[in-house]
Amino acid sequence: MKKIAVLGNGSWGSVLGSLLADNGNDVVLYGNIDSVNEEINKHHTNEHYMKNWKLNPNATATGDLEKALQGAEVVLFVLPTKAFRIVAKNVRKVLDKIGTKPLLITATKGIEPGTKKLTTEILAEEIYPEDQDKIVAISGPSHAENVAQKDLTAIACASTSVENAKEVQEMFSNDYLRLYTNSDLVGVEVGGAVKNVIAVAAGILVGKKYGDDAKAALMTRGLAEITRLGVNYFGAEPMTFSGLAGIGDLIVTCTSVNSRNWRAGKQLGEGKSLDYIIENMGQTVEGATTVKAVHELAQEKNIDMPISEAVYRVMYENANVDEEIKQMMGRSPKPEISL
Amino acid sequence: MKKIAVLGNGSWGSVLGSLLADNGNDVVLYGNIDSVNEEINKHHTNEHYMKNWKLNPNATATGDLEKALQGAEVVLFVLPTKAFRIVAKNVRKVLDKIGTKPLLITATKGIEPGTKKLTTEILAEEIYPEDQDKIVAISGPSHAENVAQKDLTAIACASTSVENAKEVQEMFSNDYLRLYTNSDLVGVEVGGAVKNVIAVAAGILVGKKYGDDAKAALMTRGLAEITRLGVNYFGAEPMTFSGLAGIGDLIVTCTSVNSRNWRAGKQLGEGKSLDYIIENMGQTVEGATTVKAVHELAQEKNIDMPISEAVYRVMYENANVDEEIKQMMGRSPKPEISL
Repeated sequence: MKKIAVLGNGSWGSVLGSLLADNGNDVVLYGNIDSVNEEINKHHTNEHYMKNWKLNPNATATGDLEKALQGAEVVLFVLPTKAFRIVAKNVRKVLDKIGTKPLLITATKGIEPGTKKLTTEILAEEIYPEDQDKIVAISGPSHAENVAQKDLTAIACASTSVENAKEVQEMFSNDYLRLYTNSDLVGVEVGGAVKNVIAVAAGILVGKKYGDDAKAALMTRGLAEITRLGVNYFGAEPMTFSGLAGIGDLIVTCTSVNSRNWRAGKQLGEGKSLDYIIENMGQTVEGATTVKAVHELAQEKNIDMPISEAVYRVMYENANVDEEIKQMMGRSPKPEISL
Repeated sequence: MKKIAVLGNGSWGSVLGSLLADNGNDVVLYGNIDSVNEEINKHHTNEHYMKNWKLNPNATATGDLEKALQGAEVVLFVLPTKAFRIVAKNVRKVLDKIGTKPLLITATKGIEPGTKKLTTEILAEEIYPEDQDKIVAISGPSHAENVAQKDLTAIACASTSVENAKEVQEMFSNDYLRLYTNSDLVGVEVGGAVKNVIAVAAGILVGKKYGDDAKAALMTRGLAEITRLGVNYFGAEPMTFSGLAGIGDLIVTCTSVNSRNWRAGKQLGEGKSLDYIIENMGQTVEGATTVKAVHELAQEKNIDMPISEAVYRVMYENANVDEEIKQMMGRSPKPEISL
């Protein structure tokens, strides 16, 4: 039994916090909305994020970061990328004050706007510049709703320290969640961070009424370009992308009709404009930001990402979908594996 | 323009033959049912295999193997695995007689019953024991119906000779079919040959009403064990399984509700017996044979294939599905990549 601080009490943070309490740990969730913290403490619910669900009562909530971190052996980050660095800076300050060096785990998927850093890179820069071994990333095909319902889920956990990856594997694993260790810390983050671009493309193909072959080809060739980005930009290992945080997460994202990115893509395929789609979606289309970020990463290091670039042109340069598909099918012949 | 003999005029053989004729080649389809050959020659249709579809008239049919092979620069094998070796032996005899050495391509997916050989291995043994470079395999996520409708499809083509792989890439590629070259001849065959085991497992999960996370985890961990089998039994390259003939084909197979293997799995998940399912399906459940073959391969070389082995026990040893899932989730902790 460990004391664990979970930073972020949205759906994924709450579900992971509750799961860690199920597994016998003493969990404190930290969040900055008082009413949510109160609701968790009084009713063990978080209705705004997870309807009809109860947290394990051994997971309590607080808006006081120092209180959350006091005595914590493990800190789990489940924050939006745009808030990640500022919270990490605050965590470092509190840890310096209380004089502890807990294990850090990130479950956040995404790239920091502006810097285009992964969350493991932010943790290394802001908290443990000389102790990367104490950073672990978890990622894989995991809907908060599936895990809340104790459906079967498998994810990867990665660290440069085999021991720390194993510790996290043991901490989270139970009869409905299974973790597999990996030594590729950044690689495990890349897939989850950029997969939404391919989800938009999958939606476009459905909007254009293409069939199963096209969708499978898109996911496979999408994986090939995510792998190239991971290897050439972030220094990831190619085989990581065959795993849960790579193709596993991509499969879930591209086959879920409930994904906003997929639905935005479908409407693009049906000929609607990005402005119209964003206006009528009523919610953020995360993929729209990721598409821009991936375009900039690919340009910066001259990485061949034909699908992502086509999605960028369709979204931001009014390119014609049929014309883009025609060009893609008519590209020069390629070998399958080209890193 | 080349003269190409296509051996096998079922759905995939007819569609590939017609496509090669579309691409400007002179195509002769060889098949052993006279009425089918006549229908192709008179009406350019093959109604038993492909409803409401017409072949390119430059693809003709014959029941005479020597006539089909006469002058052929390329021979494409699209035969059931159980007929593969006998036809290959006959091809060798005819080639010796007419004195030609055409390029051989196999589009057959499966393992030969008994010997458990891949079709590229059969071609090497029976036709070109000293000239493996002249053998090319094509495989990937490709329904005959999708290609017939000129939907977008991408597949891999592999040969130990880069030049020959490129020649086949050029021969088949057009604006609706795109090929990617690969140098891993056996690796490209393994995925297509054994994927049905995982399709049965995917059906079982749906029959048990598990969600999207479970399905993505199954495909990813299924890929991991197919990769282990490919590497340790057939000497394949791990990265091949991240490609079209690996994960690409697996995605199409596990997400297609029309697959007999998937439907058989779903009924197993719902608690029906294998005997009952086979009796009521009215058609062969190919996966039932593959499950047995993969079990034997795994046993022979002591390859860790927990999903395939669980499917085997459910199918042939009356094992309880819930018990198998419980055991699988409770296995000792594992690293993600373990070849």
